[in-house]
Amino acid sequence: MGISADMGAGFQRLRELVEAVARCGRNTPGHGVSRLALTEPDRQAREIIAGEMRELGMTVHTDACCSLWGVLPSSGKGPGVIIGSHLDSVPEGGDYDGVLGVAAGLGVVRDLLSVPPRPGRPLAVVVFTAEESSRFSLACVGSKAAAGRLSPEDVRRFCDGQGVTLAEALKNFGGHPEALGQEIISPADWAAYFELHIEQGPVLDKTGDDVGIVEAIAAPTRFMLELEGVQAHSGACPMALRHDALTAAAEVILAVEAAGQAEAKFGSVATVGVCECRPGAMNVVPGRVTLKVDLRGIRSESVARMRSQVMAKAVSVCGARGVTCQLTPYSSDVPVAMNAELTALLERICRERDVKYRRMPSGAGHDAMFVAECIPSALIFVPCRDGVSHSPKEQIEWAHVQPGYEVLREAVKERLFL
Amino acid sequence: MGISADMGAGFQRLRELVEAVARCGRNTPGHGVSRLALTEPDRQAREIIAGEMRELGMTVHTDACCSLWGVLPSSGKGPGVIIGSHLDSVPEGGDYDGVLGVAAGLGVVRDLLSVPPRPGRPLAVVVFTAEESSRFSLACVGSKAAAGRLSPEDVRRFCDGQGVTLAEALKNFGGHPEALGQEIISPADWAAYFELHIEQGPVLDKTGDDVGIVEAIAAPTRFMLELEGVQAHSGACPMALRHDALTAAAEVILAVEAAGQAEAKFGSVATVGVCECRPGAMNVVPGRVTLKVDLRGIRSESVARMRSQVMAKAVSVCGARGVTCQLTPYSSDVPVAMNAELTALLERICRERDVKYRRMPSGAGHDAMFVAECIPSALIFVPCRDGVSHSPKEQIEWAHVQPGYEVLREAVKERLFL
Repeated sequence: MGISADMGAGFQRLRELVEAVARCGRNTPGHGVSRLALTEPDRQAREIIAGEMRELGMTVHTDACCSLWGVLPSSGKGPGVIIGSHLDSVPEGGDYDGVLGVAAGLGVVRDLLSVPPRPGRPLAVVVFTAEESSRFSLACVGSKAAAGRLSPEDVRRFCDGQGVTLAEALKNFGGHPEALGQEIISPADWAAYFELHIEQGPVLDKTGDDVGIVEAIAAPTRFMLELEGVQAHSGACPMALRHDALTAAAEVILAVEAAGQAEAKFGSVATVGVCECRPGAMNVVPGRVTLKVDLRGIRSESVARMRSQVMAKAVSVCGARGVTCQLTPYSSDVPVAMNAELTALLERICRERDVKYRRMPSGAGHDAMFVAECIPSALIFVPCRDGVSHSPKEQIEWAHVQPGYEVLREAVKERLFL
Repeated sequence: MGISADMGAGFQRLRELVEAVARCGRNTPGHGVSRLALTEPDRQAREIIAGEMRELGMTVHTDACCSLWGVLPSSGKGPGVIIGSHLDSVPEGGDYDGVLGVAAGLGVVRDLLSVPPRPGRPLAVVVFTAEESSRFSLACVGSKAAAGRLSPEDVRRFCDGQGVTLAEALKNFGGHPEALGQEIISPADWAAYFELHIEQGPVLDKTGDDVGIVEAIAAPTRFMLELEGVQAHSGACPMALRHDALTAAAEVILAVEAAGQAEAKFGSVATVGVCECRPGAMNVVPGRVTLKVDLRGIRSESVARMRSQVMAKAVSVCGARGVTCQLTPYSSDVPVAMNAELTALLERICRERDVKYRRMPSGAGHDAMFVAECIPSALIFVPCRDGVSHSPKEQIEWAHVQPGYEVLREAVKERLFL
């Protein structure tokens, strides 16, 4: 396929690319795609994207962490623009998570090339390796590596369900895990990073806005609570003599929800996603419950308030019930703000083009979090139906994706010709 | 060992028998005993008991359901007395559950024979097969069969974890599953059934009473509640747009507890023993939770009130949260009263001997439930430490078991010479 001179060709091509990539790792109908990082379906998807990069005249290479780069040689000087996202999926995932951002980047390149002059600064599209944590229990692998935040030791520690380490998988895929640890996205070379992604939440779908301009990406504070009461016979132990770990846990679960609701005005959320109850027999008063708690917000102090509120309640509930509670922290990261100048640029473009948009937080993590440590970065959300993602039911309306695509294209254009 | 003429010999022998049986199926230290029904350890335990029966001059036989009977030939006429319990254990169970009642029966026989005259009516000790549901998911197998409540079809339906049906296991053990369905405990032959059992609950241990005279055995009303909300991204889905199945379940769990507390004055209890949360990932708002609820009481109307209260709350909680709730009933049995004349007899004996006792319900099921359908039956509880049972930590104090043993002996004696 040749390069079209029509400014709408990029969006058409984006749709074709998304459909082509969706065939890589396609499961039986109703089961979505399983394109886990650094597997054969991932390789097939990358080949489609690399082919498109070459067709657009970009030079293609992979970095030490196997992230795939297509760089459009520049005629002029000055730091360039990167557009990126990922191609790997969760098991039985949808067709758009990540893929849409990569394909949008290539659509933008196609559109920009179709109307002279050729951009004076470098323009790159990057496919970051293993954004999903599904295979190696580590998220945003490629972008972390590009930010110099991943060491050769790190990638030897993580492994998949078959015992293959991330280091081995990278090596088998042509990577150089021993060379990791260098920041490869430098402000000297790159002035801005843009990522377009489906929201993966229901806000835009509910409000009817077509574009979400992400102000900050929430970083999760995660911990495990282990409640230990006294296992007892469900028939023989009177109510007054019980130390039921599950009823204590129920109060904690509701306390987590209440903390999230109290901080919802700051965009914070609080979730108990895991509740394991032992021994888990109908005729036994539960002796032990494990809860895993995920608190997120774009304001650190809001997340800290939720954590305090949950812990205060857990301590008082357990104390009153004669149940012990032990906390194991998993992570406590700080929220990452997107670049204020770039978000203002996106907002201006939305206004100029009458695009219905909203500034919003991102509860989910994205590669933009790590790139933002190196260079000014922006994240654009487009709606997905009912907010469903990480599911075969993930769905989009192309008519509601196009405005976001065009905002991305115009923003990239402004930065390239700045 | 010969038969002692000393009236204290029966209790001493009871201790020896309990210790001998505890070696059958003994696990590594700290892991209790695993003497599942109709297994080799069960056979070893039965051999010890059958040997004791023969030594006491009892005639030994097994019935169609493999329950082991020792009958002391009678010199006179009239319906006799049965003392019974079981020898099978849960996996990693304790040394006293069931075994104590069987050994107490044989201790009583020894004591009665040591002091003339010989009982004029028949006296039997029975080991009921498979009281624990651990192996075949069916409890009180031997006593159900003896009450004519188990058909050849029934025993073909239940099977163990290896796919062995109860019918096959009975046949391999020398039973005659095809002959099941006949009531074999007839009021013409037997006037009374006594069972002594550890309480398996904390009441006697807390109150300091040595004997519990069971007035009625609670039958469980059991059902499953399946709550279905909307699975969502824990970071991307705002609090206000969630339909979290786990927070809805938490309210239901607390409603079950509240229902039990409201009915505690009637001896009722309410438990959620199983809580399964799916998909069960830290970064996913739970979409589906399964709860298994166990309500028990010795008053049917109290259990019915708990059930109504729980369901009303489940419906209102789920309605308010946009979560669906489906109920699957498992069982809804009626409580079984113990014989009023026999409990009055036990009470009188306690008073005469200054034994600290209390009338109480049994929350746990026992073989006495099914025997009570055929003949007047009584259940005597003795304390176990902290109420712990079905656990390697199950423990008793012999000094607190002896009063219960003596009450059993005196009650049997009175009935035999009535």
